[in-house]
Amino acid sequence: MAPRTVVVLGSTGSVGANTLDLMSHAEEEVRLLALTAGRNVELLSAQALHWRPDVAIIEDEAALPELRDRLAGSGVEAAAGRDAIIAAAGQGADWVMSAIVGAAGLAPTLAAAKSGAVIGLANKESLVCAGPALLAISRAAGGQVIPVDSEHSAIFQVFAPEDRARIKRLILTASGGPFRQWSVEAMGGATCEQAVAHPNWSMGAKISVDSATMMNKGLEMIEAAYLFGMASDQIDVIVHPQSVIHSLVEYADGSTLAQLGPPDMRTPIACAWSWPRRMRWPAPGLDLAAVGQLTFEEPDSERFPALKIARFALEAGPGASAAMNAANEIAVHAFLGRRLGFLDIAAVVSHTLDQLNDRGELATGTDDEAVEWAMAIDSSARRIAAQVLSRFERMG
Amino acid sequence: MAPRTVVVLGSTGSVGANTLDLMSHAEEEVRLLALTAGRNVELLSAQALHWRPDVAIIEDEAALPELRDRLAGSGVEAAAGRDAIIAAAGQGADWVMSAIVGAAGLAPTLAAAKSGAVIGLANKESLVCAGPALLAISRAAGGQVIPVDSEHSAIFQVFAPEDRARIKRLILTASGGPFRQWSVEAMGGATCEQAVAHPNWSMGAKISVDSATMMNKGLEMIEAAYLFGMASDQIDVIVHPQSVIHSLVEYADGSTLAQLGPPDMRTPIACAWSWPRRMRWPAPGLDLAAVGQLTFEEPDSERFPALKIARFALEAGPGASAAMNAANEIAVHAFLGRRLGFLDIAAVVSHTLDQLNDRGELATGTDDEAVEWAMAIDSSARRIAAQVLSRFERMG
Repeated sequence: MAPRTVVVLGSTGSVGANTLDLMSHAEEEVRLLALTAGRNVELLSAQALHWRPDVAIIEDEAALPELRDRLAGSGVEAAAGRDAIIAAAGQGADWVMSAIVGAAGLAPTLAAAKSGAVIGLANKESLVCAGPALLAISRAAGGQVIPVDSEHSAIFQVFAPEDRARIKRLILTASGGPFRQWSVEAMGGATCEQAVAHPNWSMGAKISVDSATMMNKGLEMIEAAYLFGMASDQIDVIVHPQSVIHSLVEYADGSTLAQLGPPDMRTPIACAWSWPRRMRWPAPGLDLAAVGQLTFEEPDSERFPALKIARFALEAGPGASAAMNAANEIAVHAFLGRRLGFLDIAAVVSHTLDQLNDRGELATGTDDEAVEWAMAIDSSARRIAAQVLSRFERMG
Repeated sequence: MAPRTVVVLGSTGSVGANTLDLMSHAEEEVRLLALTAGRNVELLSAQALHWRPDVAIIEDEAALPELRDRLAGSGVEAAAGRDAIIAAAGQGADWVMSAIVGAAGLAPTLAAAKSGAVIGLANKESLVCAGPALLAISRAAGGQVIPVDSEHSAIFQVFAPEDRARIKRLILTASGGPFRQWSVEAMGGATCEQAVAHPNWSMGAKISVDSATMMNKGLEMIEAAYLFGMASDQIDVIVHPQSVIHSLVEYADGSTLAQLGPPDMRTPIACAWSWPRRMRWPAPGLDLAAVGQLTFEEPDSERFPALKIARFALEAGPGASAAMNAANEIAVHAFLGRRLGFLDIAAVVSHTLDQLNDRGELATGTDDEAVEWAMAIDSSARRIAAQVLSRFERMG
């Protein structure tokens, strides 16, 4: 049998590195076509020397000479630039890990979808900004998109696509973040340090703030709706601070199916790698008796308005989701720069969406132009969000 | 399309009655070939007049005249006797609900398996006493056995048979019964009334005592091993007093899948009816926020020796399981008759198994003779258990 050909987009991030780690447990023969990274030449070249892909690509073209030096004599080609990454993603690999962070992941992911690859999807923006286009393109090319974050992987594992009409709802679990039990007054004064202290997962600052506002769960609601073809009123969120049940699917016959496990990204990656089978790796087991108890509570949409904003965006379509995501990035950046209060993050996003909506700037185009219109909406949303932000800064 | 032909064995019990109730929500056309019951002529005839099967069969032959009277002019044939039930079970229906209670369910279930029917299996004895034979016969005839109790249905729903080698273990949840938090001293003095007060499910006296001793979970371990082809060390039990997670399957890739739901027998019946699809009925939903918390603890095998006994029986083979089941019935009967202490139930079962094992009387024969050898072992176990019991009674 021919080896399975693989591209890892964003290999130096934690999902990318975990993907390479898991690949050492793959039972099939693997041929690594390409590793790509943004700026981290040192780690990219170390990975390339260890894993020996055909090519290692750094997005930052200024770093190409250093990459060439580090790979000299190894037989691994060095390349650079956004176009090289898109070409590697779309070259026709069997399996592509899409683990670039942010909007930069959109074009390579769509290229992989066009090539008919099975995509392990960790790049949220591809779904939030262009979910319907991505999925339509992948389906048309005979590929598959398998989510690689714990919530959507959980749903994916217990979601029977052939029985979608008998699925009542998806239930996304949320840790509730560090402010789960805070009063709205205390949240108003929350600092960056308090917001990034996530109880269960160790994450970057941006995503930690998204967890604190529950905007991450709002984005996940949108991703789930696109991935699984569910309507807004079929997607619920429940706060489950232990993060042991990663999400659930409720069927019309009264059964609710769920996936559980210790918090470890390698499990959803392994699922995306081997689906519909299961690979073996030294996975940590779930010890429910040691966990002792799992608790659940309704999310408070007053203290966490991001959930309502996301539901609005979901109902308004992918243009609104792209705008919400962009405005949120601007607002979180301002919060992390101490230029915005914690509760104002959601307010900035909400005002931005309202303005774009009033101007009719949330409309989207055809699937073929998905990257273009997502980028256009992203730009307007960033511009409007910056304006909105300046009002909040003045008020602050 | 031809209507789906159906036989309900044990229609007057709670599983049988719930099956008929669910059938009113079936989307396909259903033709009811037969309803059968043990002694309850009144309910059987009422069901027959409502559901209009071809025939209604009462096991108790003395009740045939009354059944005839009640069905006179309805067009539903009345019949009686064990052989009539076995013939109805094996006539070649598409789907057979096996919900006769006790060893009397064994022969009709095997007859249904021989006919190649899809069997919704609620009769525990068929699995405990002759599981491997039942499954081999069903498979050879092109049929399927789908469990209809909450734990095994849960496992069935998240168990990928094509990936059995990648399943690490099954985790059966147990309510822990009414004595979960009792000291061993208090358990020694437990009365029948205390033992039958089951916290979550409303059940008959025998099965309530089995829940109190956790022998029900021991029997379920054996059923699970046979149904899913798992070794004894791949089956764990965890105490989960809320009974919301009905059981779990742990895979080699770190994912644990589970089925959850409110305690309602209709959900596993619906699953057996419509598998691999899902039927729609007004099922109660799961409200995790209302439940609030799920707790888990290791079972205490000192206070609940039934789990160890069952593991021994499982490792010793289906003869030992049949003997364990029979001895347990004798012991529970004596406890309910106030002739035996609560902790002596397990002791009687254990001594009985030891004696039969020492005498080499646990050996089994071919699958074709499964009913015969299971019945033979059942008889010897009852005889020996009665002898063992008399020693405990004298000591008591």
